[in-house]
Amino acid sequence: MTLALDPVLAKIDADLDAATARLLDLLRIQSISTDPAYKDQCDAAANWLVDDLATIGFDASKRPTPGHPMVMAHTGDSGAHVLFYGHYDVQPVDPLDLWDNDPFDPQVEDTAKGKVIRGRGSSDDKGQLMTFVEACRAWKAVHGTLPGKISIFFEGEEESGSPSLVPFMKDNAEELTADVALICDTGLYGDSTPAIITQLRGLLGEEITITGPKLDLHSGMYGGLAMNPARVLAKVIASLHDENGAVTVPDFYDGVPELSNELAASWDDLKFDEKEFLGEVGLSIPAGEKGRRPLEMIWSRPTCEVNGMTSGYTGDGFKTVLPSKASAKISFRLVGTQDPHKIREAFRKMVTDMIPADCQVEFHAHGASAAGQMSTENPAFAKAANALSDEWPNAAAYVGCGGSIPIAGHFKRVLDMDAMLIGFGKDDDAIHSPNEKYDLSSFHKGIRSWARILHALSKD
Amino acid sequence: MTLALDPVLAKIDADLDAATARLLDLLRIQSISTDPAYKDQCDAAANWLVDDLATIGFDASKRPTPGHPMVMAHTGDSGAHVLFYGHYDVQPVDPLDLWDNDPFDPQVEDTAKGKVIRGRGSSDDKGQLMTFVEACRAWKAVHGTLPGKISIFFEGEEESGSPSLVPFMKDNAEELTADVALICDTGLYGDSTPAIITQLRGLLGEEITITGPKLDLHSGMYGGLAMNPARVLAKVIASLHDENGAVTVPDFYDGVPELSNELAASWDDLKFDEKEFLGEVGLSIPAGEKGRRPLEMIWSRPTCEVNGMTSGYTGDGFKTVLPSKASAKISFRLVGTQDPHKIREAFRKMVTDMIPADCQVEFHAHGASAAGQMSTENPAFAKAANALSDEWPNAAAYVGCGGSIPIAGHFKRVLDMDAMLIGFGKDDDAIHSPNEKYDLSSFHKGIRSWARILHALSKD
Repeated sequence: MTLALDPVLAKIDADLDAATARLLDLLRIQSISTDPAYKDQCDAAANWLVDDLATIGFDASKRPTPGHPMVMAHTGDSGAHVLFYGHYDVQPVDPLDLWDNDPFDPQVEDTAKGKVIRGRGSSDDKGQLMTFVEACRAWKAVHGTLPGKISIFFEGEEESGSPSLVPFMKDNAEELTADVALICDTGLYGDSTPAIITQLRGLLGEEITITGPKLDLHSGMYGGLAMNPARVLAKVIASLHDENGAVTVPDFYDGVPELSNELAASWDDLKFDEKEFLGEVGLSIPAGEKGRRPLEMIWSRPTCEVNGMTSGYTGDGFKTVLPSKASAKISFRLVGTQDPHKIREAFRKMVTDMIPADCQVEFHAHGASAAGQMSTENPAFAKAANALSDEWPNAAAYVGCGGSIPIAGHFKRVLDMDAMLIGFGKDDDAIHSPNEKYDLSSFHKGIRSWARILHALSKD
Repeated sequence: MTLALDPVLAKIDADLDAATARLLDLLRIQSISTDPAYKDQCDAAANWLVDDLATIGFDASKRPTPGHPMVMAHTGDSGAHVLFYGHYDVQPVDPLDLWDNDPFDPQVEDTAKGKVIRGRGSSDDKGQLMTFVEACRAWKAVHGTLPGKISIFFEGEEESGSPSLVPFMKDNAEELTADVALICDTGLYGDSTPAIITQLRGLLGEEITITGPKLDLHSGMYGGLAMNPARVLAKVIASLHDENGAVTVPDFYDGVPELSNELAASWDDLKFDEKEFLGEVGLSIPAGEKGRRPLEMIWSRPTCEVNGMTSGYTGDGFKTVLPSKASAKISFRLVGTQDPHKIREAFRKMVTDMIPADCQVEFHAHGASAAGQMSTENPAFAKAANALSDEWPNAAAYVGCGGSIPIAGHFKRVLDMDAMLIGFGKDDDAIHSPNEKYDLSSFHKGIRSWARILHALSKD
């Protein structure tokens, strides 16, 4: 027996102001996870969610971890079982002076492009996770029950590298395992195309520090005779790509799949405008591997990128110093079955072989996660895609994601669950930046989208 | 009629403690020229020197400039005319916490290698300039007069780029012109070989900033598609040298003379131990142009050096940012008749040609001075060399200097005067660093050296 969808959508529309007020309430809680000074606020956010989910009829509880608590909630006992994930912690706010208003005094604001909800966490991730919670509330209010079995799993450390996440998932595997995971922490494709992310790039971080002389030297007294580690570093970095833009680390492309014709065709249908995309940030020319589509460059090709570089005197003016050290932070985005640990080894060997005999190099590992590939054969994908297409002006698209969202990989590896990443954010939400916002239309249509998806998933 | 030298040397020996006390007095004056807070102290140092020179019978006066005052002093009216230059201003002291004692509470200190005078300016340049003043004092005390015509010229802005110097020299050219200039701001060769510097490298400074995207980007969202200026900068820097260590800027080596056989032989006689020299700073392998002697690499070959480099996130930890900008501070040491302005143009053109179409590069000039070449044919050189050889364990050597001392070039260009750079500093004096010192033996034998040199120059 399938419960009717339309009254739920009507209820959502009628209840939007109240739903918005509830979101503003959650946004006022300063749940910054990276800073121990806000530990109590993180706890308060977890409490708020437990209490709110209980009012919707969830069996909800707060679960302690070595860090910030998890929120677990369950309802229903039969039918398709979904597990919804989100995070209640938010990014720090600096630089505070660049915010137009208090980041934790959220407002509904009029802008040229429509109303927005302004405040830290409005898009990443509280506004997004509340789209699902409000969809559940509407279902419960109209029908007295929710469609299918629904579990909810919120963490409070996503902005801090989720140290408690995987251990908790392992310890509570049975409770967490469902038929499919739903993650709401991503965006639309463009302004009006709903998207299900089917592949995410992995991430490997490395920091290298090259030391030449044991202290900074006077460049008159030693210049020309002493090895300069800044020059060595420049040579290393310049060697990481060939003239076609390919990464030169040995065996780097092992495990990188070619784009299937089908996926290539569907991505071409998206009519990605790289000149417009790059133009927004003052660029115009795709800089990736020769012969690749722009969307391949950000979704399905691996990269090697310099995130930071420093050596010697970098203040105002000039100092004729021959630096002792030069260092760089380098990250690789990974795809397919590229093995981050093998790549780290190959990179370190390649760099070490390039270091002159009397310089030293140190490496510091900054994390490693493999790429995520969803199998769209799980029937949930087609159902969710159709539901989204009903809500939005354009049909839903399967897209890639340039970034890395580790939870998707954790669901697969720890719980053997497929994950659908569906979100309603916009490119200009300014997540991680000052003046973060979430479009009211994203919030409203996001709630309606989940209502539709839950309906679709509960049907055979 | 030549005045006897030996009684002057004896007087110097007898008077050493008093001379040291006078130097400590001058060292107490906090004449830091870069910081306007110490303007009065600079003025006080100038006054101290004027007063002291007057007691030796100089016609001494303080001369105003737009910045710190000059000290001019004259004595004698016939015979060989020498102009002695030094600077009474000193480097700032930070980081103060690395000094073992108050930098402006100078002390005579016992060390494993003998007594030292410890304090800011002890070596650079007050201890050194007082070796000449004390030599004059001893001559006057013994003979009631000084040998020959002696002019003294002290500035107070050498550590601040000497903005008032050249205009002052031009405005007072007639008063300043002598037969030869003497500069005491350099060191011995090794521990016991007196040195006359006959060539100095010039200096050209450039700062380049490459801009890619107009703001820092998320490296997941844009990585692989957007041009990374850090990579562009690395490629530029890596291109500045070829595989033989030669600088690749077009026409860079125009005006670079080959080392004469004579000079090469005399430098070989110095038996420079590059492994020991480099070993002191943790290196071992000469890194300059293939096939060149180590001393050529620091004295007579031009260089291109990276003094600083920065891009993106350089703090603790990791940020997956694709930086907007990357910049480097680069300096060239010049030799022979290399033209710094032509080299700056050629460098800028070379770099600009390497910048991808949608990146920008900005250049910022940080000074330019040509190399200095002394003509040792001036008879003063041989006389001074012989005098030094009489004082020190080893015979005097004509040496090069890796660094740039602009005053020597100014004397030649503005006043058409040869300059002899003779000094008694040691490599471990820690000039510009915490815990600066000047060996008491350098002070003592330095005074005796100038007494001998003045004697030699006054003879035909």
